[in-house]
Amino acid sequence: MKETDEFLILKEFFKDLGNQYFDSSGLLIGPGDDAGMFSEKDQELIFSTDVSVSGVHFPKNLDSQAIAYRACAVAASDIAACGGSLKWISISLTLETNEKAWIKGFAQGVIDFVETYKVPVIGGDLAKGKECSVSVGVCGALDSQNFMKRSGAKDSDDVYVTGNLGEAYLGLNLLTDNKKNLSNIEKLWIDKYLKPKLRFEFAQELSNFANSCIDVSDGLIADLNHICEMSSLGASLDSDKIPFSGELEKALTWGDDYELCFTAAASKKEEIDRLTDLFGIKISKSGRIEKEKHVKVLKEGTPVTFEQTGYNHFNE
Amino acid sequence: MKETDEFLILKEFFKDLGNQYFDSSGLLIGPGDDAGMFSEKDQELIFSTDVSVSGVHFPKNLDSQAIAYRACAVAASDIAACGGSLKWISISLTLETNEKAWIKGFAQGVIDFVETYKVPVIGGDLAKGKECSVSVGVCGALDSQNFMKRSGAKDSDDVYVTGNLGEAYLGLNLLTDNKKNLSNIEKLWIDKYLKPKLRFEFAQELSNFANSCIDVSDGLIADLNHICEMSSLGASLDSDKIPFSGELEKALTWGDDYELCFTAAASKKEEIDRLTDLFGIKISKSGRIEKEKHVKVLKEGTPVTFEQTGYNHFNE
Repeated sequence: MKETDEFLILKEFFKDLGNQYFDSSGLLIGPGDDAGMFSEKDQELIFSTDVSVSGVHFPKNLDSQAIAYRACAVAASDIAACGGSLKWISISLTLETNEKAWIKGFAQGVIDFVETYKVPVIGGDLAKGKECSVSVGVCGALDSQNFMKRSGAKDSDDVYVTGNLGEAYLGLNLLTDNKKNLSNIEKLWIDKYLKPKLRFEFAQELSNFANSCIDVSDGLIADLNHICEMSSLGASLDSDKIPFSGELEKALTWGDDYELCFTAAASKKEEIDRLTDLFGIKISKSGRIEKEKHVKVLKEGTPVTFEQTGYNHFNE
Repeated sequence: MKETDEFLILKEFFKDLGNQYFDSSGLLIGPGDDAGMFSEKDQELIFSTDVSVSGVHFPKNLDSQAIAYRACAVAASDIAACGGSLKWISISLTLETNEKAWIKGFAQGVIDFVETYKVPVIGGDLAKGKECSVSVGVCGALDSQNFMKRSGAKDSDDVYVTGNLGEAYLGLNLLTDNKKNLSNIEKLWIDKYLKPKLRFEFAQELSNFANSCIDVSDGLIADLNHICEMSSLGASLDSDKIPFSGELEKALTWGDDYELCFTAAASKKEEIDRLTDLFGIKISKSGRIEKEKHVKVLKEGTPVTFEQTGYNHFNE
């Protein structure tokens, strides 16, 4: 019996991705059946989904291997932000092409991701459409008391940020400008955009000390505002203490960095400093949670204002 | 602080969908955080995802309420096909419009679905794109020994089909022809296309007797072929015993019916007949699993051939 292209593609390119991690992830049945089966009797489970659309979330001409890796990373970043370990991912791909090289590249990007974070693919779906879009589902596990909720911030908490903001924006620009002869730092920026580092172990340890956490996807101001709104509080950021590269405004409002922003009581400062050494991650104390309900950025005590406050898909 | 449209839309239309079913589903944290949290310490979990693209999986002019309901049902059908109970759904929506009425209708379709099957929405994502596409993730629970695998068919199993095939195709045609003054049976066909009935309780009971099961999404021949291929077997269908409406070829090759096709040992016939009465579901014994590795359709012992064997997204 002749099979449809859809199943041929799935069989040829998307079989057994990350199957070596079935046992460590509690995966019992993977792709190929009506559903995948898994088990988690000890911990609670967390699930999140993110969709990446061509021309919106990534440049139209980005190669398919990079599209796949980034779509997986962007989705799985939410598991890190909660303090969970990653169990499995699922991938729904809408394709505008039948081109084998493109599909092979995409599958390779998924392989790169699952091998980096040692997780299996539980399943997925494939459809033809007018534009490429990738919807990734991610499942993680944690003990419920370690879930770092957006709503957990407390008045007077310190606000911390990992890494440097704005680098993904710089990397994206280098990519779209198709710049040649890149310096080492420029290569790092591109890597930051294409392969955001997911700090699972760090965040799991952090979850013992932090009151709230979010990953910086839409820009620090917008994302910290989610914490503030869910916690019925506000925050002030000290522009001199925000770690960034490039322009401050872009660094705070563009997003794409997938660094973590978290809040913790001042009494936890020592423990948090220890995490810097333990995980080799730059952590900057950049602001403070306050009662007044909005997020402000201060430069030497004076508010700084920006034209935009965060990335908005619907502004185009 | 001004928020982005994305979050305003999520807050206005997609808040608290199915929240009344948190407890019964073991959902601990729903939408609004980086991830939703759930727990299942007693049973195993199953997960599947399905993407529905405008103009491919449903007509471009279909109203948004119907798009949403159908996308949820089509995805959740996989949980029924495995023999699971549905725990929660997640929805990634790519929109080509900002129109409030459209979005409100879509949210209403999700509400219709979650209230019909009494499940919560664990989370989702929203993006702007060039075409409407809906990726739905579904999670269910079952005892692992009850998972009806595609690979479970045994030689000489009877092949059964629920309901009538071909009705969704007839309904879809009535919709695309925009036919007025519909008869009662025509209204039922449209309903069959728009709101496939998911037979969760039936399938859970069935899982005690059946060796394999699949939902008929791409047409009986193509879907039974998945069972045969995964089981390293073949099957013959008796065209006079296949329950269908309209033309046989369309009924067997179009799909969209989301009825269940399952196989069971001949010795289980009595138990399966009993399910018909218990659940008021028409069940037809339509064929037999065989050693010879392909699916054939016989009319009075003579093979019937068709131009197409199943729906293929990539044929257009």
